[in-house]
Amino acid sequence: PGVPEEMRAVFREGVLPRLLRKPGERVVVRSVNLFGMTESEVDGRIGDLMRGERNPSVGPKVEGGVVRVCLRARGESAEQAQELLARDVETIRERFGDAAFGCDDVTLARALSELLEELGLKVSVAESCTGGLIGSFLTDVPGISHFFLEDVVAYSNECKVSRLGVPVEEIESFGAVSPQVAQSMARGVCRTSGAALGISTTGIAGPSGGTPEKPVGLVYVGISLLGRTGAHRLRLRGGRRRIKDRAAKHALNFARLALLRRARGEATGDAQA
Amino acid sequence: PGVPEEMRAVFREGVLPRLLRKPGERVVVRSVNLFGMTESEVDGRIGDLMRGERNPSVGPKVEGGVVRVCLRARGESAEQAQELLARDVETIRERFGDAAFGCDDVTLARALSELLEELGLKVSVAESCTGGLIGSFLTDVPGISHFFLEDVVAYSNECKVSRLGVPVEEIESFGAVSPQVAQSMARGVCRTSGAALGISTTGIAGPSGGTPEKPVGLVYVGISLLGRTGAHRLRLRGGRRRIKDRAAKHALNFARLALLRRARGEATGDAQA
Repeated sequence: PGVPEEMRAVFREGVLPRLLRKPGERVVVRSVNLFGMTESEVDGRIGDLMRGERNPSVGPKVEGGVVRVCLRARGESAEQAQELLARDVETIRERFGDAAFGCDDVTLARALSELLEELGLKVSVAESCTGGLIGSFLTDVPGISHFFLEDVVAYSNECKVSRLGVPVEEIESFGAVSPQVAQSMARGVCRTSGAALGISTTGIAGPSGGTPEKPVGLVYVGISLLGRTGAHRLRLRGGRRRIKDRAAKHALNFARLALLRRARGEATGDAQA
Repeated sequence: PGVPEEMRAVFREGVLPRLLRKPGERVVVRSVNLFGMTESEVDGRIGDLMRGERNPSVGPKVEGGVVRVCLRARGESAEQAQELLARDVETIRERFGDAAFGCDDVTLARALSELLEELGLKVSVAESCTGGLIGSFLTDVPGISHFFLEDVVAYSNECKVSRLGVPVEEIESFGAVSPQVAQSMARGVCRTSGAALGISTTGIAGPSGGTPEKPVGLVYVGISLLGRTGAHRLRLRGGRRRIKDRAAKHALNFARLALLRRARGEATGDAQA
């Protein structure tokens, strides 16, 4: 297929296993995708699975903040290879717990949309520094229109006030980049759109606009779920695009973790990490 | 530098020219970026510059719908090489006219932001099928906060009505994917945000949701500039992400062309392409 994504999938699932197998051998591949883990943390937890000639072979690949733990199993039959693979996938998911958000092509946005479907909830977004990237990640997922209502990219303070009902005094007292404003944005987009889950970001993507108290890379993520609202603080490094990318992924991940707790019946709590 | 973008710039401007030059020779490189051109159209217009051992060497590279015409000039001094390069850049820009939107790292969004600065205007966006990608492209440009007010990603019809004032009857009569709704969205986001320029998209990104009359890949772009509003129709191919990407870039380009006409004092006209 001409579409790179589809071509990659065909290559990975159809072509690569055939190229790699020895005569009479079957090869199957899979990946377990992790967020919020460094490569050295991955080494620490599954180093024992990553030794040389082990079957399945296990190796991490880092792509835009996501660690993909890639597995390749060989067996005399496809069933045997699948069985070996399934056992390791299970082990890896257990060792990483909630940091493992899905397998193969599953993105953070897709993992979130599956939880929204499971819980019967809808999401809206209010973005400042990420500028539409969270909305764009969500709308990469086919069928997201059933769970996604709207995204207000409130770049100006006027928009934060008029579209989301952020109190002017709050912006004046704490600044637009503050946990208070992040929470008001998330709460506001839930109220004005009728969504159960609200995700917000406000931060300094750079390269200018930073101060000693609020440096470039400081981002607050607000999560509002069924009336309970909290904020998370991030300190991100890199250029403007990288900061946007990582902030958007962290925001999706915080939302995913809140839904996971909800699905398990845990209290969501007012997080202030 | 660890940031891929910065590394690429350093490599392109600092390392590559040194690697490519022969003793006593200076090499300089540049690209002219085109939108809305196929490779064969490019061949047709500058095929004469693309012959083998010519200096500067000229060759096109296609990246996500943008054709980058890459030039590499060699000279006895940097000045001589620069001079050769400048002459060809001029020729290429002339031959492509408004399809040439900038050089080197200039994106469509950056070209648009430079025109907004020149004209002293502000932009707001109302996205449906592009889902936040136009906003994300715009906010990749440092300093865009001076020219960008807000972006309403109106994925649900309710949001199109409540946030943007699109008439319910219009959605019922023509469907959400229609030139009428595209225009109402662009007009609506100008009115509600106070922006001079409004950009909107509504379309079918797929993979499902298409009909014989409104197939996957059908997208309408609305442009509203200082009270005059028009719509453009696109028929895009490929998967969901590709359709979003191309629709967002076409939308930025239509807005750029409208501002160019404005800058030249031409009537903006109610385009219906």
